[in-house]
Amino acid sequence: MRKLILIRHGESEWNKENRFTGWTDVDLSEKGESEAKNAGRMIKKAGISFDIAYSSVLKRSIRTQHLLQEEIDLLWVPEVHHWRLNERHYGALQGLNKAETALKYSDEQVHIWRRSFNITPPLLEPNDERCASNEIKYKGIDPAVLPLGESLEMTIKRVLPFWQDSIAPSLLEGKTVLVTAHGNSLRALIKYLDHISDEDIVNLEIPTGVPLVYELTDNLKTVKHYYLE
Amino acid sequence: MRKLILIRHGESEWNKENRFTGWTDVDLSEKGESEAKNAGRMIKKAGISFDIAYSSVLKRSIRTQHLLQEEIDLLWVPEVHHWRLNERHYGALQGLNKAETALKYSDEQVHIWRRSFNITPPLLEPNDERCASNEIKYKGIDPAVLPLGESLEMTIKRVLPFWQDSIAPSLLEGKTVLVTAHGNSLRALIKYLDHISDEDIVNLEIPTGVPLVYELTDNLKTVKHYYLE
Repeated sequence: MRKLILIRHGESEWNKENRFTGWTDVDLSEKGESEAKNAGRMIKKAGISFDIAYSSVLKRSIRTQHLLQEEIDLLWVPEVHHWRLNERHYGALQGLNKAETALKYSDEQVHIWRRSFNITPPLLEPNDERCASNEIKYKGIDPAVLPLGESLEMTIKRVLPFWQDSIAPSLLEGKTVLVTAHGNSLRALIKYLDHISDEDIVNLEIPTGVPLVYELTDNLKTVKHYYLE
Repeated sequence: MRKLILIRHGESEWNKENRFTGWTDVDLSEKGESEAKNAGRMIKKAGISFDIAYSSVLKRSIRTQHLLQEEIDLLWVPEVHHWRLNERHYGALQGLNKAETALKYSDEQVHIWRRSFNITPPLLEPNDERCASNEIKYKGIDPAVLPLGESLEMTIKRVLPFWQDSIAPSLLEGKTVLVTAHGNSLRALIKYLDHISDEDIVNLEIPTGVPLVYELTDNLKTVKHYYLE
């Protein structure tokens, strides 16, 4: 049975402050660091190892992965950090407090931005300093694919090529794979693996720092999945 | 000008205890962690960035790299951990206290083991539990190349293919490269880059946690090198 471990990064400084984060590169909170270490202990306790570790290029995901690896003595495992596993880009909402945004635009509008499948947040202006194109870490990427804001649908579309080209081939080679990512990039993978509808995926909640193990057939069909404890 | 940054990992628990370490996977000491962070600050202060980070598969090297990357906000940079950058394998001496070993075998014998170019330490027996073949991290490697003990000469011979196949190609692509490694695997690279004789290389001391910058021509000839402060 092929094994895939998905994990959402631990609490970040902005989760704690209830701000829209998206591609903003905020660090883990102390609680997030503890969650990451604890996730490592859960994987160790379950007797699971992994052969390759994928993360986004955002430090809350990379640090979760490193802290988890350290706990399970797997720091030497090959690592790949890729922008396609980044969180959904929250456009011009990035940095805003969710409660204040609700006061300004209405609860209903914020709910639509957060929980609709194909509605984008207000986009960043191309000259906004928050644009990904201003960051050194995206300089090797075709500027045309760097988002100014994404719906969940857009996020899924850019995550799946990474599944197809990197994660799935590793699983097919017989590797056990760890993916440390974000609420919405993980929704993309879970929607695909579990054939979840557009309507239902928006409401799927993934806890931070809890490893979710998928057991897959040789053809990468899901046999079962379960959270570790 | 092409740039290569070499750095020896920070102090490890066994550096502190004065024990032969080699391929034993001991962690950084607290001082070693500070040295690693400080190295990151030095690189940042020098205004240098890097595009790819190479380390050994030993955690004192990987953690030095991660702590340094965190300090300079470059955690997202592609990382490669490879056994060819490991420390010289110290054979049956691994784990022994250097002073006690000197009392047992004589100062002179220990000096020969530590400072000769082509003399191996006493080798591990193939059934010794300390053999690399017992470790999961070496399971994907031809057992015939896993050493039971190495001279500096043997270390150099297995390090150089990694220079040729990975580090040099990255430099030739125009990337600035970070290599976080060990006293003897770095001697291998420095001997090659600076054409140091077999006699002289054994006495070259490389400080822990201090970035050593090489500026290279397009043909990877050394123009100059200097330690950062």
